[in-house]
Amino acid sequence: MQFRIEEDSLGRRKVPAHAYYGVQTVRAMENFQVTGISIAHFPRQIQALAVIKKAAALANQELGLLDDERAQAIAQACRETRSGQFDEHFVVDCLQGGAGTSVNMNANEVICNRALELLGRERGEYSSCHPNNHVNLSQSTNDVYPTSLKLAAIWYGKDLIRALRDLARAFADKGEAFREVIKMGRTQLQDAVPMTLGQEFTAYAVTLDEDVSRLEEGLSLLHEINMGATAIGTGINTDPQYATLVSRILADISGLPVVKSPNLVEATSDTGGFVQFSGVLKRIAVKLSKICNDLRLLSSGPRAGLNEINLPPRQPGSSIMPGKVNPVIPEVVNQICFQVIGNDVTVTMAAEGGQLQLNVFEPVVALNIFQSLAILHNGCVTLREKCVEGITANTERCAAYVDQSTCIVTSLSPALGHETAAHLAQEALRTGKAIRDLVLEQNLLSSEEVDRLLDPQNMICPQPIAKERTASDEETKPAR
Amino acid sequence: MQFRIEEDSLGRRKVPAHAYYGVQTVRAMENFQVTGISIAHFPRQIQALAVIKKAAALANQELGLLDDERAQAIAQACRETRSGQFDEHFVVDCLQGGAGTSVNMNANEVICNRALELLGRERGEYSSCHPNNHVNLSQSTNDVYPTSLKLAAIWYGKDLIRALRDLARAFADKGEAFREVIKMGRTQLQDAVPMTLGQEFTAYAVTLDEDVSRLEEGLSLLHEINMGATAIGTGINTDPQYATLVSRILADISGLPVVKSPNLVEATSDTGGFVQFSGVLKRIAVKLSKICNDLRLLSSGPRAGLNEINLPPRQPGSSIMPGKVNPVIPEVVNQICFQVIGNDVTVTMAAEGGQLQLNVFEPVVALNIFQSLAILHNGCVTLREKCVEGITANTERCAAYVDQSTCIVTSLSPALGHETAAHLAQEALRTGKAIRDLVLEQNLLSSEEVDRLLDPQNMICPQPIAKERTASDEETKPAR
Amino acid sequence: MQFRIEEDSLGRRKVPAHAYYGVQTVRAMENFQVTGISIAHFPRQIQALAVIKKAAALANQELGLLDDERAQAIAQACRETRSGQFDEHFVVDCLQGGAGTSVNMNANEVICNRALELLGRERGEYSSCHPNNHVNLSQSTNDVYPTSLKLAAIWYGKDLIRALRDLARAFADKGEAFREVIKMGRTQLQDAVPMTLGQEFTAYAVTLDEDVSRLEEGLSLLHEINMGATAIGTGINTDPQYATLVSRILADISGLPVVKSPNLVEATSDTGGFVQFSGVLKRIAVKLSKICNDLRLLSSGPRAGLNEINLPPRQPGSSIMPGKVNPVIPEVVNQICFQVIGNDVTVTMAAEGGQLQLNVFEPVVALNIFQSLAILHNGCVTLREKCVEGITANTERCAAYVDQSTCIVTSLSPALGHETAAHLAQEALRTGKAIRDLVLEQNLLSSEEVDRLLDPQNMICPQPIAKERTASDEETKPAR
Amino acid sequence: MQFRIEEDSLGRRKVPAHAYYGVQTVRAMENFQVTGISIAHFPRQIQALAVIKKAAALANQELGLLDDERAQAIAQACRETRSGQFDEHFVVDCLQGGAGTSVNMNANEVICNRALELLGRERGEYSSCHPNNHVNLSQSTNDVYPTSLKLAAIWYGKDLIRALRDLARAFADKGEAFREVIKMGRTQLQDAVPMTLGQEFTAYAVTLDEDVSRLEEGLSLLHEINMGATAIGTGINTDPQYATLVSRILADISGLPVVKSPNLVEATSDTGGFVQFSGVLKRIAVKLSKICNDLRLLSSGPRAGLNEINLPPRQPGSSIMPGKVNPVIPEVVNQICFQVIGNDVTVTMAAEGGQLQLNVFEPVVALNIFQSLAILHNGCVTLREKCVEGITANTERCAAYVDQSTCIVTSLSPALGHETAAHLAQEALRTGKAIRDLVLEQNLLSSEEVDRLLDPQNMICPQPIAKERTASDEETKPAR
Repeated sequence: MQFRIEEDSLGRRKVPAHAYYGVQTVRAMENFQVTGISIAHFPRQIQALAVIKKAAALANQELGLLDDERAQAIAQACRETRSGQFDEHFVVDCLQGGAGTSVNMNANEVICNRALELLGRERGEYSSCHPNNHVNLSQSTNDVYPTSLKLAAIWYGKDLIRALRDLARAFADKGEAFREVIKMGRTQLQDAVPMTLGQEFTAYAVTLDEDVSRLEEGLSLLHEINMGATAIGTGINTDPQYATLVSRILADISGLPVVKSPNLVEATSDTGGFVQFSGVLKRIAVKLSKICNDLRLLSSGPRAGLNEINLPPRQPGSSIMPGKVNPVIPEVVNQICFQVIGNDVTVTMAAEGGQLQLNVFEPVVALNIFQSLAILHNGCVTLREKCVEGITANTERCAAYVDQSTCIVTSLSPALGHETAAHLAQEALRTGKAIRDLVLEQNLLSSEEVDRLLDPQNMICPQPIAKERTASDEETKPAR
Repeated sequence: MQFRIEEDSLGRRKVPAHAYYGVQTVRAMENFQVTGISIAHFPRQIQALAVIKKAAALANQELGLLDDERAQAIAQACRETRSGQFDEHFVVDCLQGGAGTSVNMNANEVICNRALELLGRERGEYSSCHPNNHVNLSQSTNDVYPTSLKLAAIWYGKDLIRALRDLARAFADKGEAFREVIKMGRTQLQDAVPMTLGQEFTAYAVTLDEDVSRLEEGLSLLHEINMGATAIGTGINTDPQYATLVSRILADISGLPVVKSPNLVEATSDTGGFVQFSGVLKRIAVKLSKICNDLRLLSSGPRAGLNEINLPPRQPGSSIMPGKVNPVIPEVVNQICFQVIGNDVTVTMAAEGGQLQLNVFEPVVALNIFQSLAILHNGCVTLREKCVEGITANTERCAAYVDQSTCIVTSLSPALGHETAAHLAQEALRTGKAIRDLVLEQNLLSSEEVDRLLDPQNMICPQPIAKERTASDEETKPAR
Repeated sequence: MQFRIEEDSLGRRKVPAHAYYGVQTVRAMENFQVTGISIAHFPRQIQALAVIKKAAALANQELGLLDDERAQAIAQACRETRSGQFDEHFVVDCLQGGAGTSVNMNANEVICNRALELLGRERGEYSSCHPNNHVNLSQSTNDVYPTSLKLAAIWYGKDLIRALRDLARAFADKGEAFREVIKMGRTQLQDAVPMTLGQEFTAYAVTLDEDVSRLEEGLSLLHEINMGATAIGTGINTDPQYATLVSRILADISGLPVVKSPNLVEATSDTGGFVQFSGVLKRIAVKLSKICNDLRLLSSGPRAGLNEINLPPRQPGSSIMPGKVNPVIPEVVNQICFQVIGNDVTVTMAAEGGQLQLNVFEPVVALNIFQSLAILHNGCVTLREKCVEGITANTERCAAYVDQSTCIVTSLSPALGHETAAHLAQEALRTGKAIRDLVLEQNLLSSEEVDRLLDPQNMICPQPIAKERTASDEETKPAR
Repeated sequence: MQFRIEEDSLGRRKVPAHAYYGVQTVRAMENFQVTGISIAHFPRQIQALAVIKKAAALANQELGLLDDERAQAIAQACRETRSGQFDEHFVVDCLQGGAGTSVNMNANEVICNRALELLGRERGEYSSCHPNNHVNLSQSTNDVYPTSLKLAAIWYGKDLIRALRDLARAFADKGEAFREVIKMGRTQLQDAVPMTLGQEFTAYAVTLDEDVSRLEEGLSLLHEINMGATAIGTGINTDPQYATLVSRILADISGLPVVKSPNLVEATSDTGGFVQFSGVLKRIAVKLSKICNDLRLLSSGPRAGLNEINLPPRQPGSSIMPGKVNPVIPEVVNQICFQVIGNDVTVTMAAEGGQLQLNVFEPVVALNIFQSLAILHNGCVTLREKCVEGITANTERCAAYVDQSTCIVTSLSPALGHETAAHLAQEALRTGKAIRDLVLEQNLLSSEEVDRLLDPQNMICPQPIAKERTASDEETKPAR
């Protein structure tokens, strides 16, 4: 293996000759052997770093701080980096100390060495173009790194929004398809009152659509960036016009409406935007998990479960029980959700641990937010494609539950009063008789009235209540 | 002790004669002996239940479902309940099963018995006015209870907003007072570059003001209520006009802009609003805890710590070390924050555990959100009154740190290049010499230039950079 | 209201004349208005403080550091305090800053003032007996407070052990009672293979009995105390014999096998024992919650659910649905468990936040561990008394599920091979035919053999496998 | 690309010709595209599956259920798999649904196809040796999979124990090296009383050694396995002797003292052992994080921080601040700890979510426990090698803090009384005078006595207290 020698303030190190990264990245690889997974596992962050470095170079050029030749070489190197062609040179472990310095330097070095090539120089010939003095000019890890997290999170977030929307639409389609399927609603796992399977699935669509709105709000918090803050937000070593300028250029290049934070000192130490955003991801996880719990419950059986719906079979369910088919897709989505919920705690701990002018724990925030975004996205796509779109209803089973139910007595309550109705329900359960028969036996209502009240179609939405005969009158009479 | 006998569908029970609550509350007291703390510990929820019950009574009256006499008696009982005069009769443990049914019935029974008195009847004479048939008319626990959580959370939330705003203002005032105090900024607990103590405290104000905005957004999610949903969101046993009407009346009575949820089935099972809101409370906790960590660090000492600021002494700090004074106020706020963060996990678990048409675990959601709101409020008030307002600066100590620092070399970096500056810093640390002396010794800059660059006043905000002499030129030269 | 004036190093304060507490407690009441719940909510800690103070007094007496008269007065005051008669004077909020100093001083002051009375002096006449110089002699909050947490946790823990054991026994009794009830086992909510309801309930007993063992181990970690450590574990201001002596006396008085920690510096800063113990409580919560989830699922219905068991009705289940009965007891236990799980996160945060020679966040650790212990205890008692002991089986429903099942095909798999069996299961589901009929139709096994293999009694435990006719042979044949 | 066709109960699928895995693995790859990381990322689990499958084959052979030829081929394939040569064929995503079925089938298929080769057959020729009928004989995913988690966790746990022990030893060595370095102890970040740096570092060693004990206990819980349980713990399709036999053989092959669980139904559904174990990992994380927080605090500076110790520089600390060196190693370990703490919440959620006879969420439990183990191990090794072993003390700075301190007044408290000492401390702080001078000025003690009491060497451990002159006497006198 061929090497070149590079030097930093701690001394010299061999760098693989083919590598675009340099000495500081080599040190980081030595120092951080943690997860075995490099930052390239989340390529959106590399893209973010590339557009940030390009924006900074162009801003520096415009302010006369960087000559045109170097600026153009750096900009071109950034374009190439954004396209993904140097991903394999982003080798720092996705968990590192140093508040992202190693990630920033990995980017500085890769871009610098590619720029050197474009300038007709050798890799490592940093006197011509320097990772710190030129590529990192007017920047600090402490503004570049959190900004790269925000851009990457926004991009991953947009992917998730699409996947969530598609999933919500799939549920809405099923809601439409199942609109005629009458079934028992359940509260506390006990039979409650009738509804339609369509109402149930539509509710899933509605709840996920709300999450799209929350996610959009959460992403909007990440638009506020701290470029120009440099080390601690005071903007040391930047031109007074730089912060505004670089933010504007970055918005242009990235296509994202990023803006300079109004208080850069606050923005440099604060990770509240990530905490809020992670909280939104947790909320999505909570809802998705609840929905998957429901799908598993509704499809339980086939014989000794509720068996109201069928999930499409995806794989043999057991290595020992032949023919068993399990709800493997909701199951994996549940687990994705548990991971996201745990990740939120990690983000919380990391955010709480920030001290004074910087939160040094942003790398673990990044890892967890990127992972949560990625697996939630994959979970939504998988759940839609491999499960929801193929769900079918067992209409007869659903109807049978309603027919057998004693809980439909609820709809008699306005006419008979709560207590009379309760006694009817108990009697029905005890004797096995139908509610309708009991009502007629005891002469409580006419058969027309009882039929109208017990028609499930009349129980799935509000109905005008016969005012001349409400429970109040009923029960007040004996009191007179 | 005197008793009356009441009966429900499970049989008879003795009820204390003086009690406004009834048989179902008695059962709940027997069933749920959990925390030893009753729901009256959070009186905002009782107020919320009172306005909800009143709104329902008035809506029922308007729809002709409840006669004027009963409606007015119930409304008057609700007014009195809202004023707090029956708080001692809200005796259900703040953790209970049944998805809030016992809380709803506690309210129904108290209001009903008070209404009976107003109607000239005895407590327990439910044939004249009935907890279920009249007080709970057109309602279910499943719409009343979550709506009461939302109203109470909004009210507690408004208290918290005021406390947060006041706290932010106290920090802003200190930011103003400390605007001239030059000090070292620190990243990763290592000396970074200078800033002012005013910038540091202003950043705390800014970050808390952002939380006010997030909290307002979070509260706005709770304005969507599901009154009229009854059991599962289908509105069974309600008039078609009821849901809209009761929501409008409730908005009037409560003074809160509550609105009917567009999908009542979704709204009845969903706890996403609480999860999001709890996430916002967690975010506030994370920020407050970070600020308290900083205050404790900056006031550490007095001799063997940073000692940049003084917190007002509140109490002797030790039972063994005479004269020790500890940062007890930030310490208690840290603990409040840890509690809020743990409570968020409880809320998350409870929300995830909801099944099908209802989340039965809302009582633990309520307990944790109410507690988090209350203790955050108390923490903000305490932190402001007993700590922040009395903080003073040790201006000389702050200045001495800057004078001794080697890190101010950063400001020479644009002129000398990153590597030359790094070597200067190392030499200063090794030899104990001042950076300025080293620069002049080595003839790197004129004394005017070095004095300008090393003036801390020039390091606390962006400065125009001398373009004729940037590091790029410096370091490119030897490369020729 | 009458007052006396007391003074500490920060100045003078009015103290209610009737109060046994003194000036430092008054300051703490002013400083910490957080939860509205005083430390007396957990009386075990007051008892623990009393025995610790008594042990210290006796040790000091034995070492000649405290004269007999004062020592005996203090000891007597501790006895009375342990008996609960001064609980109302323990008024410090259960969340406070100061690492427990206010709690320790509350105890020092109450005991001191009672001792003064016993010595024939007035409350507040501290020149005769002093809260710090005598009651707190050879002690620091930093050894007294964590030791009091440990003692209290052990006592609460023993209560919990009893409750857990009783609960396990109740499940074991049901396991015995249901030993003949054949039912379908379920994995992934899908029908699996038969078992008995007795096996299911016995497993609950076994899993809770294991928790008793874990809890005992967890408690044993708390036996290691740091009395004699004083401020930071170096034992400043203690006699060389004191630490061992006070630990021995404390063991005698408390009846608990407490021992002096081998390294007092470590023991004073470390909260690992609490973290581990809280982790065990979380484990118990996880198991209890899972069991309650199962109970709710198995009792779901009555018509549209599994309905394999009946929970005893505890209260009317709904304010709108007459006759509905809900599993309110498991529901409240689930919520207790969620609270314990959230509390564990709070404990974790607090433990992680300790710095250098002390963990200042022990009060929130105490609050959360005490609460978790108390509510788990109450939950276990409630679950046993109000639910488990009254559970009955729906034997016919259980049997019907087995009869209808297609999954019993599993028992044919060794004879027929996995794939043949899988095809049979699919065919049975598709056609509605019984597995037995299909096997005979297709001439796969003799009717004797199929009856033997499909007898549920033969499926609930291992059975000798007919070796001459295993699947290997079966399926290898066609390959020839 | 070449393919072969395989078939399962859901139909046919193309399998890459070179693949040792088969149709069910292909389905799993299609179904679960979640993390992008395969189960081979944690090779210990593959090794565990290999020894389990081998043990089952030998047990089946001994019971006459599997012929010698097939048994030996399977055993040989398992040996090769254990050696790591088929790792690349373990391609299932490390998050999947199906309770581990896909992982078990991946193992069954790889081992089966390799066994087929050894038997002179083609891959996929399952009539000769079948993944289910032979490799999985007498097994179910529900016993194989959790057993494989336990074995892998034990192996990873043993690695962690070694790393923890080595780290503890490194701290102990520093404790020894720093035994003479007198410094201020700090409580609540405020100056407390003197100690040695050696005491501080020795305490870190002690606390980590305790974790080794806890980890060993935690691992011992995992020795209880449920092989022979098959589907739900009833042992369906196993010979009555199998469970005991396979456990014994597995203990032999693995070298681990695994034993058959006394209740296989309980053992199959329970994940309590993992919850407890994860709790222990969390405890380790809490302690390590606290230690890293301390190291960062003690090394803060160099000029504006505590600067008591120096961490070895590992890499340039900043992209903008030349010469800055940061505590990057403790920082990455902190983040590892936050990840482990979050992972514990994920494990908790997953464990709580188990239902009835199985916990279907074990894959996410596995992922999180394996990851926590791996990164804690890496963190311990890194912290020792790259940080602790290179720490040096700034002895003079440490001593200067003690000299300047006013808190040493504590040691005068037994002689002067708490209040007199407190006034001295306040006066010293106010006037800047030394405590010693004030004592002599005010004639409180002789110069010999004050020198003895204020000698730091006498403050770092218990000292005999002059009994004739204790505070009690002092302060009682004026009261007379």
